[in-house]
Amino acid sequence: MNATLSWRGIHRRRLLATLAALPVLPAVARAQTLAGPLPSWNDGAAKQAILDFVRATTDPASPAQVAPEDRIATFDQDGTLWVEHPIYTQMVYCLDRVPALAERKPALKHIEPFRTVLSGNREAIAKLPLTAFEEIAAATLTGLTVDAFNADVARWIATAKHPRWDRLYTDLVYQPMLEVLSHLRANGYKTFIVTGGGQDFVRVYSERVYGIPPDQVVGTAGVTAYARGRNGEPFLIKQPKLLLNDDFAGKPEGIHLMIGRRPRAAFGNSIGDREMLEYTKAGDGTRLSMLVLHDDAKREFAYGPAEGLPDTRVGTFTQALHDEARKAGWPVISIRNDWKRVFAFD
Amino acid sequence: MNATLSWRGIHRRRLLATLAALPVLPAVARAQTLAGPLPSWNDGAAKQAILDFVRATTDPASPAQVAPEDRIATFDQDGTLWVEHPIYTQMVYCLDRVPALAERKPALKHIEPFRTVLSGNREAIAKLPLTAFEEIAAATLTGLTVDAFNADVARWIATAKHPRWDRLYTDLVYQPMLEVLSHLRANGYKTFIVTGGGQDFVRVYSERVYGIPPDQVVGTAGVTAYARGRNGEPFLIKQPKLLLNDDFAGKPEGIHLMIGRRPRAAFGNSIGDREMLEYTKAGDGTRLSMLVLHDDAKREFAYGPAEGLPDTRVGTFTQALHDEARKAGWPVISIRNDWKRVFAFD
Repeated sequence: MNATLSWRGIHRRRLLATLAALPVLPAVARAQTLAGPLPSWNDGAAKQAILDFVRATTDPASPAQVAPEDRIATFDQDGTLWVEHPIYTQMVYCLDRVPALAERKPALKHIEPFRTVLSGNREAIAKLPLTAFEEIAAATLTGLTVDAFNADVARWIATAKHPRWDRLYTDLVYQPMLEVLSHLRANGYKTFIVTGGGQDFVRVYSERVYGIPPDQVVGTAGVTAYARGRNGEPFLIKQPKLLLNDDFAGKPEGIHLMIGRRPRAAFGNSIGDREMLEYTKAGDGTRLSMLVLHDDAKREFAYGPAEGLPDTRVGTFTQALHDEARKAGWPVISIRNDWKRVFAFD
Repeated sequence: MNATLSWRGIHRRRLLATLAALPVLPAVARAQTLAGPLPSWNDGAAKQAILDFVRATTDPASPAQVAPEDRIATFDQDGTLWVEHPIYTQMVYCLDRVPALAERKPALKHIEPFRTVLSGNREAIAKLPLTAFEEIAAATLTGLTVDAFNADVARWIATAKHPRWDRLYTDLVYQPMLEVLSHLRANGYKTFIVTGGGQDFVRVYSERVYGIPPDQVVGTAGVTAYARGRNGEPFLIKQPKLLLNDDFAGKPEGIHLMIGRRPRAAFGNSIGDREMLEYTKAGDGTRLSMLVLHDDAKREFAYGPAEGLPDTRVGTFTQALHDEARKAGWPVISIRNDWKRVFAFD
């Protein structure tokens, strides 16, 4: 395993924000009463695939009904549950932490890639190599206690905003996907996040934003070390050593480690989700694997095979993945066509 | 990290047994209706500590009430939820698998420690060094797919019996502790097993025996590798490489990895549980850490500082641990004095 956290281990961030944030789940509940379980979805193959799957696996009259304890659904986060462009939220957090880090360790001010980050030159930062981001992640996400890290993320996510919308990152969750989470849970499914992003990072806000408790967040995780302070008080320190790289093949491996059962349904949007979708769909009985396609430049972003942004560092939805989806029978969710609205504030 | 699974990673086994097994949880529910939440407990400091803790942290009128999402309770398994003497159940499973392993790999028949195990000489087996058991564990718990392993454990646990009682290992769970699990869950606590034993092993039977689903079992875990078969079908293979050694300091580290929150209550019985109990008790607000003392040779076993078996390979409850419990305010559960009955069949 690598000695540093991977690139996929650092992107993404969001939340524990102000109490004044949108009351997302109650809004979902209200909407469902009025318009069925997926009110923000247009009628079409994607919506129907979700409704059919839930009915087939939970209706007592269905031959494909699944025992309550086997109702497991997994969701990628970045690009599947919230916006991942132009840069993973957690990476924004890491970059934002560099100035404070350089105050504590002034030598970093003269060392790359920290010097470039501190310059504030966005173009230069965007051109940094992948290894630079790995270094930044290792430096900013480790070396502090678990409690200090959680508190710092909570402070940051309460105020940091996405430049395009000038809104909290936690407001940029996809309303239609919240409805899928809610519909699955209402039918006895246990919902999990399975993210290439940092497990500790996502856990800070997962319950409030997605209704998913910390122990149902599987993500890239580093080693922690148990230690005792001067007065014998115990604490855990985050080490710069990778324990689980929860991306690509690491997703089914992480699912086995943390959940212990094969999902019945899985949702993703990029090549990092491929193995999770394959693994899910290869199980017996009725299974559902779905891909979110970002094809709506007007309301969100367009990238991947649909149009635009063919080569990006984040959320790579390749033509090969698109082809595999067709071949394997993974319904593709078109943001442009399948979603009536993208965000709760739309 | 070690290249092989540790000794603590191999002990323990049980379940997926016959459908005819004892209906443990309904029995608990019935008894509670008649006699309060802990009917198999004698009145005393230990029982009172549990009742007081639950009331203080869940009664809406209590100033120490804990939010529902923070109600986390963790339980060691071997010696805390079921019998661990004279040998961890999972180790019995490993020893039982050696003949089949030697059929597939005949060279092992002439190599120690496999030769000794195959001899069936119990005295010689008992004298094998710790490293021998590590070798046996690595050889028997890895190299097969996750699905094949689960199926094999399920078959074994359905028939294997403890020699002293001639009963299924899954019948040797402590009835009073099932009542603690049930009482906590009835008050909104999420209950987790945090075992030095193998996570994959315990998950096979955890839901049926303890009412704890696989994703709420934290244990010693090895790396798995995602691979594809001849027809492209994906599977996970268990590798002989340790990922999480969930014992001693590894318990709070495992709790952070898998649960992500500090427990409000923790139950253990040996030096391997010390750090979990410390970490739990060091949190803010009302917390409960408790130790089971095996002091009942007549109904179960006596070992540790109370009497007998001063030096055993399993469940070491030392005088030092006993002293720390007194100093730190961890109530000690005396099996002899605090439990009206030990097993459901008593």
